[in-house]
Amino acid sequence: MDLIRMGQKAAAAKYELQRLTSEKKSHALRAAAKELIADSSIILEENAKDIKQGEENGMPPGMLDRLRLNKERIAAMAEGLEQVAELADPVGEVMEEFMRPNGLKIRKVRVPFGVIGIIYESRPNVTADAFGLCFKAGNAVILKGGSDALKSNAAITASIRNALRKNGICQDALQLIESADREVTSRFMKLNQYVDVLIPRGGSGLIRSVVENSTIPVIETGTGNCHIYVDEYADFNKALPIIINAKTQRIGVCNACESLVVHRAIADSFLPELAQALQSRNVEMRGDEIACGLIGDAREATEEDYGKEYLDYIISIKTVETMEEAIAHINKYNTKHSEAIITENKKNAETFLNEIDAACVYVNASTRFTDGFEFGFGAEIGISTQKMHARGPMGVKELTSYKYLIEGEGQIR
Amino acid sequence: MDLIRMGQKAAAAKYELQRLTSEKKSHALRAAAKELIADSSIILEENAKDIKQGEENGMPPGMLDRLRLNKERIAAMAEGLEQVAELADPVGEVMEEFMRPNGLKIRKVRVPFGVIGIIYESRPNVTADAFGLCFKAGNAVILKGGSDALKSNAAITASIRNALRKNGICQDALQLIESADREVTSRFMKLNQYVDVLIPRGGSGLIRSVVENSTIPVIETGTGNCHIYVDEYADFNKALPIIINAKTQRIGVCNACESLVVHRAIADSFLPELAQALQSRNVEMRGDEIACGLIGDAREATEEDYGKEYLDYIISIKTVETMEEAIAHINKYNTKHSEAIITENKKNAETFLNEIDAACVYVNASTRFTDGFEFGFGAEIGISTQKMHARGPMGVKELTSYKYLIEGEGQIR
Repeated sequence: MDLIRMGQKAAAAKYELQRLTSEKKSHALRAAAKELIADSSIILEENAKDIKQGEENGMPPGMLDRLRLNKERIAAMAEGLEQVAELADPVGEVMEEFMRPNGLKIRKVRVPFGVIGIIYESRPNVTADAFGLCFKAGNAVILKGGSDALKSNAAITASIRNALRKNGICQDALQLIESADREVTSRFMKLNQYVDVLIPRGGSGLIRSVVENSTIPVIETGTGNCHIYVDEYADFNKALPIIINAKTQRIGVCNACESLVVHRAIADSFLPELAQALQSRNVEMRGDEIACGLIGDAREATEEDYGKEYLDYIISIKTVETMEEAIAHINKYNTKHSEAIITENKKNAETFLNEIDAACVYVNASTRFTDGFEFGFGAEIGISTQKMHARGPMGVKELTSYKYLIEGEGQIR
Repeated sequence: MDLIRMGQKAAAAKYELQRLTSEKKSHALRAAAKELIADSSIILEENAKDIKQGEENGMPPGMLDRLRLNKERIAAMAEGLEQVAELADPVGEVMEEFMRPNGLKIRKVRVPFGVIGIIYESRPNVTADAFGLCFKAGNAVILKGGSDALKSNAAITASIRNALRKNGICQDALQLIESADREVTSRFMKLNQYVDVLIPRGGSGLIRSVVENSTIPVIETGTGNCHIYVDEYADFNKALPIIINAKTQRIGVCNACESLVVHRAIADSFLPELAQALQSRNVEMRGDEIACGLIGDAREATEEDYGKEYLDYIISIKTVETMEEAIAHINKYNTKHSEAIITENKKNAETFLNEIDAACVYVNASTRFTDGFEFGFGAEIGISTQKMHARGPMGVKELTSYKYLIEGEGQIR
């Protein structure tokens, strides 16, 4: 795998991409969408090979499902590219403009990052989605997908590159590392000379590995140990639907609720009611002593439970004597993703909003809203759980940097 | 060195710091300034021990000078803290505010990072400067200074911590790693659980080591291989003073000019004139064949010369046939710091501004203006040469993150 050569090609492409007009980019994205539909049969053939390989390797049904493409899923990928084509182009926006006393005129202007690297797991749709967002923001992208999806990803990549070529755009705007070798991934994570930012998309193991091994600046995405705190001033008619929604609407996602914190003053009346609602939806509860005492058959929660992103029909429950205790508990165990308070007390809501350390803090709403579409960004590349650069849902705008343009008439210091 | 304990203390302090009012922070900064002046004798005593140690270890004069404190330098540190006290507080700024169709009200609000780690070299004034900026932005800070300045840094830290204590503010807002052990630095760079961002300040060796070894998100600062391109439409009356200023006003700084690119069409008339001006200021020139032919005693420039940050009275000179060639040369060899074009041609100026990949791109002004004070930020923690989070001069605002605050009335998905 000649990664240096790939880096050089991406670096060469980035100068062309940053010059593309919004119109040309949108046109190319729509052309890529059409090309994917036109290439459906080839893509499905290649995907069938990945599926066969997965079956032979004993891949679990859930993973096979994520790997599998069909006409509808290809149509959804194409639809995604069409949607990104419609989004506003962030490149060129003048973010700030000011004049210095010495006459220098300074503008802070939004520019593409340049080259973005993305390392992801088995869903082949990420290939098209990630390309679309990075391209819209004027970036070249180098993808490293899961080895299980190598043939599917290669077919999708070839189709999009064809569309670019037909539109007179440098194909190296999209490159795929076609290797299943872990050593190649390791080298990719150290390609600082050519790659400006690296974004991992996948499970916590993948993300940890990238954070620990990359020398390229990383945007950490993903893991969500999200809490809902039911305050003593909670309206149960809001609390119950919100908890049920946040826990059960989709269990495998990072903005699902994994842990409840319940004020002692309302625990006696609230927890039995909640337990009934959760049990009827097959949600296992793991609580502290007080919670277990109030719920029929709850298991005792361990330290490990409080820190865990279950991604399953399980929820931990902690009772607290004060809101301060709730905030301290959440700040200790959360992954800085999404946290909610259910309360009718304005002061408590404000304190919670201010003191919880997380990308998204909610009052009386489900944590499931932490999402680029729900925020109105049109699409997202992921949810950032770090504090540098971008926090929370990252749309097209978050895939840009800026530079200062300074105009003078001969000024010196 | 119990780094975990230090991390815990910083993490505990950060919640108190993010709640501090702007007034309280400014008051504490002014108190710290006074405390430094009051503690001058102790600080100078401790500094004398570092100096003695340095002399015994054969430290070169330039480094000894950077390490040495005196009344004036302590006064300058105090003055720096007073200035930071005057700056606008970035924390709490509502950066965006919007309502979603489902009634969710979303605010994007500026918040402190939390805990910032700073690794720096021998200048003890960084101890006070870095504390001031981080504290103003509501952050706890853990400092790791150079082992040569350990006693000076410890004395400065103790003085500031005293001022904080006397003002009822948690002293752990500022902690210093008092160890000269490299292994401690290695562990510090992996303290992700407690440190949100790591900023190296120093030479390129230090910066490279932090980028390569840290698992904490890093803001890369510093190295500047800055170019000035003299276009065929340049006004020599602007070009000459700008080049002399950018090269010779202060040679050891990252925004000094290290390389010239000169259009062939004006080389015959411009280079001899330039050579005279630079030679009279003892600047050694290293040029390509054409440049050497036009300048008396220039040395031939190697590939290494074009990529080098001299930080010395040396400059490389490359002649080009077209502006496109100039842009390609600069984008190849620069460190993404500061680049300038000297031209009276508006179209060329615009192309250069758009196509050069650097934090700061200038038209008809000295690269020396890349500086937090010169940009009007009041102070700076460094010049970022990466594209993530912050680019160019980083002031107080760049030491913050943001979070989304979402208010609903029971919304679910």
